[in-house]
Amino acid sequence: MGNGQRKMHKNLGTEANSASNHNHANKDNDQSKELKENSTKAEGPPKHPNLLTEEALGGKHPLEIFKAWMMEAFQTGEPDPFFMNLATATSCGKPSVRLVALGDSDERGLYFATVDGTQKVKEIKENPRAAVCFYWSKLQRTIRIEGIVEECENNEEPFKRWPKPFQVGMRLAGAQGKPVEDWESAEKKLQEEMAKFGDQEVPQPEHVTTYVIIPTSVQFMQLKQTSLSDRFIFTKKDPADEGSWSFDRVYP
Amino acid sequence: MGNGQRKMHKNLGTEANSASNHNHANKDNDQSKELKENSTKAEGPPKHPNLLTEEALGGKHPLEIFKAWMMEAFQTGEPDPFFMNLATATSCGKPSVRLVALGDSDERGLYFATVDGTQKVKEIKENPRAAVCFYWSKLQRTIRIEGIVEECENNEEPFKRWPKPFQVGMRLAGAQGKPVEDWESAEKKLQEEMAKFGDQEVPQPEHVTTYVIIPTSVQFMQLKQTSLSDRFIFTKKDPADEGSWSFDRVYP
Repeated sequence: MGNGQRKMHKNLGTEANSASNHNHANKDNDQSKELKENSTKAEGPPKHPNLLTEEALGGKHPLEIFKAWMMEAFQTGEPDPFFMNLATATSCGKPSVRLVALGDSDERGLYFATVDGTQKVKEIKENPRAAVCFYWSKLQRTIRIEGIVEECENNEEPFKRWPKPFQVGMRLAGAQGKPVEDWESAEKKLQEEMAKFGDQEVPQPEHVTTYVIIPTSVQFMQLKQTSLSDRFIFTKKDPADEGSWSFDRVYP
Repeated sequence: MGNGQRKMHKNLGTEANSASNHNHANKDNDQSKELKENSTKAEGPPKHPNLLTEEALGGKHPLEIFKAWMMEAFQTGEPDPFFMNLATATSCGKPSVRLVALGDSDERGLYFATVDGTQKVKEIKENPRAAVCFYWSKLQRTIRIEGIVEECENNEEPFKRWPKPFQVGMRLAGAQGKPVEDWESAEKKLQEEMAKFGDQEVPQPEHVTTYVIIPTSVQFMQLKQTSLSDRFIFTKKDPADEGSWSFDRVYP
């Protein structure tokens, strides 16, 4: 896609950031305002032009299409549009998958925050590759992404976007995935911490780390009931070159 | 859990089978009738007793709890309760994940049908392990399963439960995941095949295979907004011994 592609990609940063600037805590941020305005302005249900044509896709960066689909998923009232299934694997190739909230996204990739010592962190540390899958039922759309994972220092955005009880839970959850020996004390401690923070911002604890998934392939699929579903695969030929994305329409 | 557990598990077969006997094509089978009766009988929304207590779980086989949660997901009108995210990995440990419909389940495991030659089949053939994740938004519940994968001969149930256009699509989709050279002809061929079968049953083609995921661990999580979420992990200590399941309550 050459230089044109690279230029477009360079401009994607702030827009993609704004598109994924959903707020799990429903704070009245720019993004939710923008979405609210869009949905009250619209007459009837929002229009969903078929983005999956070769004409529409040619020259677009896959994360730009991702951004557009995420916006539409919000606008159609999908209950948890930012929930993604994150797959990792041990270095021996034993896969695992769990639900994770997308914390942020930009031209580099998809960001999420998680607690150190969990299964996914152990697997990422020994094998820094991941795959994610989004599914939006109302739109009958799914996106699959594969890529490499890197740790991000000084990026607290994903943590900030969690609802407060989850933030406090993550503060206490140095033991996430470990057996609970005394449930009542653990629950009591959570309630005490919740009360302690009140309306204050909860600081990201030491044991929470942000990771970014840098895509090497992105697949879009628009499911159809009575005709062949649309499916496009974008592949980055050279992981170091954002200009090396190519795409194919494939059998669903 | 010893013999008591094994006996309970032995009896699980037909029940679990009936619980997962959802029909993607909305045929009027026993299961959908049963669910309809349940939902019309119920006054107000269905009750969801908290199954996640040590008392309720002790001695239960995890696939029995899976069955109960799947039933509840159907009863609460979750749009696609049988959709699961299936993760596989290459033998080098590169993970991938996609949306797959659960085709059937019984005391052995979870069944799905897929087209030979796809990425997941290639990965399963070189590395017969998989992980799946279900998420039911209305119930705020998620289930994660890890296990080994085996091919099932002469099991056409998962294929039979696909809606007809998907069955016909799978017949044509020997090329699934391969580039479409002539979209119009492909679409025309699908419509011709659809017309050809009319009301007839679509036979499972040679290039579609059924696989079973035999669990070695099963995790249940009931998300909660203002208190610690419930999370229980079942682990099979000896893959060959159904009596060797143990469980732990863990930090969410």
